[in-house]
Amino acid sequence: MNPSIAIGMIGYKFMGKAHSNAYRQINQFFDLPLRTRLKTIAGRDGPKTQKMAERWGWEESTTDWRRVIDDPAIRIVDICSPNNTHYEIALAALAAGKIVACEKPLAMNVAQAREMAAAARAAGNINTVWFNYRRVPAIAFARQLIDEGRIGRVFHFRALYLQDWTLDPSVPLIWRLDKEVAGSGVTGDLHSHLVDLSNYLAGEITSVSGVSRIFVPERDLPDGGKAHVEIEDASIFLAQYAGGAIGHFEATRFANGRKNGNTFEINGEHGSLYFNLEDMSRLWYFDSREPKHIQGWREISVWEEVHPYMKHWWVPGCAIGYEHTFGNQAADLIQAVADDRPMKPDFDDGLRCQLVLDAVLKSCDSQRWVDVETMEG
Amino acid sequence: MNPSIAIGMIGYKFMGKAHSNAYRQINQFFDLPLRTRLKTIAGRDGPKTQKMAERWGWEESTTDWRRVIDDPAIRIVDICSPNNTHYEIALAALAAGKIVACEKPLAMNVAQAREMAAAARAAGNINTVWFNYRRVPAIAFARQLIDEGRIGRVFHFRALYLQDWTLDPSVPLIWRLDKEVAGSGVTGDLHSHLVDLSNYLAGEITSVSGVSRIFVPERDLPDGGKAHVEIEDASIFLAQYAGGAIGHFEATRFANGRKNGNTFEINGEHGSLYFNLEDMSRLWYFDSREPKHIQGWREISVWEEVHPYMKHWWVPGCAIGYEHTFGNQAADLIQAVADDRPMKPDFDDGLRCQLVLDAVLKSCDSQRWVDVETMEG
Amino acid sequence: MNPSIAIGMIGYKFMGKAHSNAYRQINQFFDLPLRTRLKTIAGRDGPKTQKMAERWGWEESTTDWRRVIDDPAIRIVDICSPNNTHYEIALAALAAGKIVACEKPLAMNVAQAREMAAAARAAGNINTVWFNYRRVPAIAFARQLIDEGRIGRVFHFRALYLQDWTLDPSVPLIWRLDKEVAGSGVTGDLHSHLVDLSNYLAGEITSVSGVSRIFVPERDLPDGGKAHVEIEDASIFLAQYAGGAIGHFEATRFANGRKNGNTFEINGEHGSLYFNLEDMSRLWYFDSREPKHIQGWREISVWEEVHPYMKHWWVPGCAIGYEHTFGNQAADLIQAVADDRPMKPDFDDGLRCQLVLDAVLKSCDSQRWVDVETMEG
Amino acid sequence: MNPSIAIGMIGYKFMGKAHSNAYRQINQFFDLPLRTRLKTIAGRDGPKTQKMAERWGWEESTTDWRRVIDDPAIRIVDICSPNNTHYEIALAALAAGKIVACEKPLAMNVAQAREMAAAARAAGNINTVWFNYRRVPAIAFARQLIDEGRIGRVFHFRALYLQDWTLDPSVPLIWRLDKEVAGSGVTGDLHSHLVDLSNYLAGEITSVSGVSRIFVPERDLPDGGKAHVEIEDASIFLAQYAGGAIGHFEATRFANGRKNGNTFEINGEHGSLYFNLEDMSRLWYFDSREPKHIQGWREISVWEEVHPYMKHWWVPGCAIGYEHTFGNQAADLIQAVADDRPMKPDFDDGLRCQLVLDAVLKSCDSQRWVDVETMEG
Repeated sequence: MNPSIAIGMIGYKFMGKAHSNAYRQINQFFDLPLRTRLKTIAGRDGPKTQKMAERWGWEESTTDWRRVIDDPAIRIVDICSPNNTHYEIALAALAAGKIVACEKPLAMNVAQAREMAAAARAAGNINTVWFNYRRVPAIAFARQLIDEGRIGRVFHFRALYLQDWTLDPSVPLIWRLDKEVAGSGVTGDLHSHLVDLSNYLAGEITSVSGVSRIFVPERDLPDGGKAHVEIEDASIFLAQYAGGAIGHFEATRFANGRKNGNTFEINGEHGSLYFNLEDMSRLWYFDSREPKHIQGWREISVWEEVHPYMKHWWVPGCAIGYEHTFGNQAADLIQAVADDRPMKPDFDDGLRCQLVLDAVLKSCDSQRWVDVETMEG
Repeated sequence: MNPSIAIGMIGYKFMGKAHSNAYRQINQFFDLPLRTRLKTIAGRDGPKTQKMAERWGWEESTTDWRRVIDDPAIRIVDICSPNNTHYEIALAALAAGKIVACEKPLAMNVAQAREMAAAARAAGNINTVWFNYRRVPAIAFARQLIDEGRIGRVFHFRALYLQDWTLDPSVPLIWRLDKEVAGSGVTGDLHSHLVDLSNYLAGEITSVSGVSRIFVPERDLPDGGKAHVEIEDASIFLAQYAGGAIGHFEATRFANGRKNGNTFEINGEHGSLYFNLEDMSRLWYFDSREPKHIQGWREISVWEEVHPYMKHWWVPGCAIGYEHTFGNQAADLIQAVADDRPMKPDFDDGLRCQLVLDAVLKSCDSQRWVDVETMEG
Repeated sequence: MNPSIAIGMIGYKFMGKAHSNAYRQINQFFDLPLRTRLKTIAGRDGPKTQKMAERWGWEESTTDWRRVIDDPAIRIVDICSPNNTHYEIALAALAAGKIVACEKPLAMNVAQAREMAAAARAAGNINTVWFNYRRVPAIAFARQLIDEGRIGRVFHFRALYLQDWTLDPSVPLIWRLDKEVAGSGVTGDLHSHLVDLSNYLAGEITSVSGVSRIFVPERDLPDGGKAHVEIEDASIFLAQYAGGAIGHFEATRFANGRKNGNTFEINGEHGSLYFNLEDMSRLWYFDSREPKHIQGWREISVWEEVHPYMKHWWVPGCAIGYEHTFGNQAADLIQAVADDRPMKPDFDDGLRCQLVLDAVLKSCDSQRWVDVETMEG
Repeated sequence: MNPSIAIGMIGYKFMGKAHSNAYRQINQFFDLPLRTRLKTIAGRDGPKTQKMAERWGWEESTTDWRRVIDDPAIRIVDICSPNNTHYEIALAALAAGKIVACEKPLAMNVAQAREMAAAARAAGNINTVWFNYRRVPAIAFARQLIDEGRIGRVFHFRALYLQDWTLDPSVPLIWRLDKEVAGSGVTGDLHSHLVDLSNYLAGEITSVSGVSRIFVPERDLPDGGKAHVEIEDASIFLAQYAGGAIGHFEATRFANGRKNGNTFEINGEHGSLYFNLEDMSRLWYFDSREPKHIQGWREISVWEEVHPYMKHWWVPGCAIGYEHTFGNQAADLIQAVADDRPMKPDFDDGLRCQLVLDAVLKSCDSQRWVDVETMEG
């Protein structure tokens, strides 16, 4: 039996569930040289964290995240606590020589992200950000088609992340709507995904112009009373790319009827690609170099053995779902650890994303075009 | 200015409108050597026929269809009166040396169709049946892809023609529901289209097994009173092909929510094709000889200049509609006349279709597999 | 037989064909109190204009558009010549007391449009701009659903007009790519449609921020030689609405694989609507006031008799196409003339659109948010 | 911590993997009163079975399936070995008082199935057949809509199960293509799913007429040499229902481009439903009792908390996949055990399905309509 690798996870809510499930499943589906060992889970609410530990098979729970950092048996520290905790925990974990896997967005702002990326580089350990959509097989496959030269020079990128769950004014001010904890609204939550995909697939954004809205200015507090909403319900922005392309991005929780409407399209000189997360098994591909009469958008069902990740799961025609994107990333992480190879996306990619997000927030504030800071600052 | 060719049309209702519109439009869109002249329209109801003549620009109207046949100036006799009149009119027109364009189904039964096809062959004139769906650009294009060898040996054909307009029991017993006039229900009306497309695209059917239903056994007569419904509301059948393929067909007016749901799919050794008349600008094509990872159903929008008929209408991206299938057939007919070339589908194709339809009706009656008669009888 | 109304048309190319076809078809399909009389067609190229006249049934042709204006028999002047001629011709026609139907965009800029709209108001005659997409049945139906209160407060509007026909660098500098004649690139050609639809469906835009691109900076001249391209190949902009909504718009001729990809979506408090011109028979509608478990995007095929315009054409399930949007507008125009009622969209709507287009062009130039001028100036 | 319930599983290949995964996952996602204990896995190949045991956490493996039956600690016997083993194992397990969960098809023929169903009834224990598609949330939801009276009298059922994996003649004669082991080809493998769904959703089939094909008559044996193929590659049949409806069914492995193309449509007097397993998160619903102008096919994304099973998995908008249908069934089984309630589909449902399958096979052989035997025989 393969040796194990111990994981400590900080955070126990929705993402904690997604990560736990991934760690539990991957050794059955992937031939990995290391077995995941779910050692410690940390959360602020002791009883809930303990219940989570029991349910998901974590050996122990704690309310003190530093115990995870201090535990020499733990090699991977997984951070899926709220956004405003990433900075402190990640720096501590890096300082302790851990491999760090941090939920997105990496940080509350560029300043934090710069420090975290620098620390990660200095530490020299494997580090990654849970931009799990890079591991949707159809999206990894999009990257492959681009690498095969099938798109060529990019002219356009357009991406939407449409949801509708806060449209109801009676939705209370939970942490995702709380500026102190979330940092921003749809920018950090949804644009972060779109911007990372743009970085992954379409290249570097150099400047942005955006506008945002708070449609419901006041909401109930979970524990009673009311509060002003300070995070944006919706944000749209234009982008100019280093390579000359232009793009636009929308993130909203007020698109009635759209639940997880993350779609993007790339138009290039040789072809185009389209993806919709609500139909995640598919990638649409248009090839303008084929004979004219048979050109068309082809709906590629990305579930053949030749497609990224799919040979590990079931057989052609059997869809995987949302949770498997985490499994794919977790499996890649474990393999990277075994091979001692770097892992992407890393903290630098997290910073790359944050540079754009901060520019978007600034642009929405100032109503001006804002240049995206360079990696060097 | 080009010389004209005089047309006489018998029938003035829905198909009369469709054909009149075609004859009026084609000279503007196609470069035809002959101009259509809408000379005489014949119908049983004098005032209504006259009104139709005025509206659509027919020079004269008559209640005596033999005046059309007897008019030496008229070269094309277009028959779009009810099914039970086709036989007599077509034979008369052929005997008079006319070019005959007859609505589908060609005849009430095989006996009539054999006689009509024999008469057409004997006359040696151009003759055609209005199986207009062969001139949907996407369907003509399907034939082209088959001719290019893109499908290969055919394994399966499946075709549906789903409507829902008689589901409401208050729909009265109009002529299409009257056995005396229509001959059959969905078999002559809808299966005729599907069977002609099968003949056109998938090859010869040799035997069938079917079952049909009358879901509403009694309906109001248009002029008061009630009558038993004797034509089938729905019919499904299995088919065996000369080449070894198997297929199934459904025609119904009881498919709630389907209006003009004529769809078909062909599966062959090299690829597959799918078409849906409710989305008639598209042909879906799957090519299994491409590299595995980019295989997919491609949605070809059949509106480029390179596609059948489309260069005559607007520009790429501008959809044509239902009416243009008649325009395409009318234009082909006029060109065939100018060139003195045969025209397809002809009365032999009408007979070919009728052979299958009669076998289907017999099979539904007898609840047995029935061999399709050969062309020779 | 009904009395006729004489039409004079200036321009004879693609739009001339579309309008001629509409004028020829509508009396057959609509019960109009006036018959269209295609009296005079004017064009700069005498032989080509004469050929067009013969083909489409215009009684006479001329190379002098003033003859159309001066002809007392002509009541309707239809302007479908290039953009830079609209101003002079429309003012002359209005001054002569004509009913004027002008192609979009109404003018080369706001200054022209203001003068034209003022002249139209002063003349007091019926006037209209050929924003034909308002008469796509599905779009007229969208307006109806909004009027029925099914959307409520609007949060988002997003609209794309994606084409790919100039992506090929060998496409020469035809008039649509010539700044002198077209005034702008995709802004006047494509954004004009989107902005008019936004005005029609989503309300008043108050400010915009845009960016545009010329991807192919030099093209062949049609008559030899090369020239710098001065019109934008692609343009995207953000919009803020008077009612608080935000929107974004994209118009491009570089979206590989998109031919006539005019799509829009409206998200409101009670529901949402989605439309795609490449599938123009459909309107998608989401209703968030239904029982939760059966909520979904419903694909409404807008071809029932109860839907706008459709009872005039064929029967449910029989699609109409691109050309019929012109027929619908022409029929509405003739009916408005017969009833002596105003017609929409009128020159004021043309100005409303131009106000936004000019702001977009200014914003793209200055890289700043630009306020849209008010109707009053 | 909840008490555990021990499971013994016989069979270790594809379905063994699917079931193991389900048993491992459900306690994390469902609040079940019993914890699944993966006690023993049995398979003919000792080393492979042992490897499977280690990978999936079975406590022990054996090559003797009777050890599972004889183990008093084991309460649930799960049979996922090839079709020709179900009969013997299931009877032994029932005789030993076990709860039995058997893969589909239940048996090789009606005679076996009758005996098994009788034994199950006599034993009085919970028993179930793995017709897992009843637990696709969209299909369970279809049943719910029918129960709500939204479809009414059924006129039509049509179902396809289209695959293409044996189209390649170089695919060898594996067990699914071996008549001795599989019993039949697509009939037992694919039609069994369709027929069970028809039984679940559309009612009782009383007679069938079918035709089948072997397109590749000879294949390589896995261990060398060649053999005649005796199982059908494709089968289509017509069905008459007790309630007057008619239906047709197709199962094939020769539909080029279709991978897991299990689709069905039900048309009733008040509405219709459509499902496609390749887009399994969706159910399409047409309601003909709505106002005419807003009638349309609504695409219901079956991933809200109010939909069957979905509250147990992730959040609205996060798709589940193929594997979760097994999880849903396993969770229902464990809950049924805890509650001591019967579980559906049971062996009687397995027999119900087999009655139709046998009639189909007989009809394909005899080329006649064949009455489906009654449950009483």
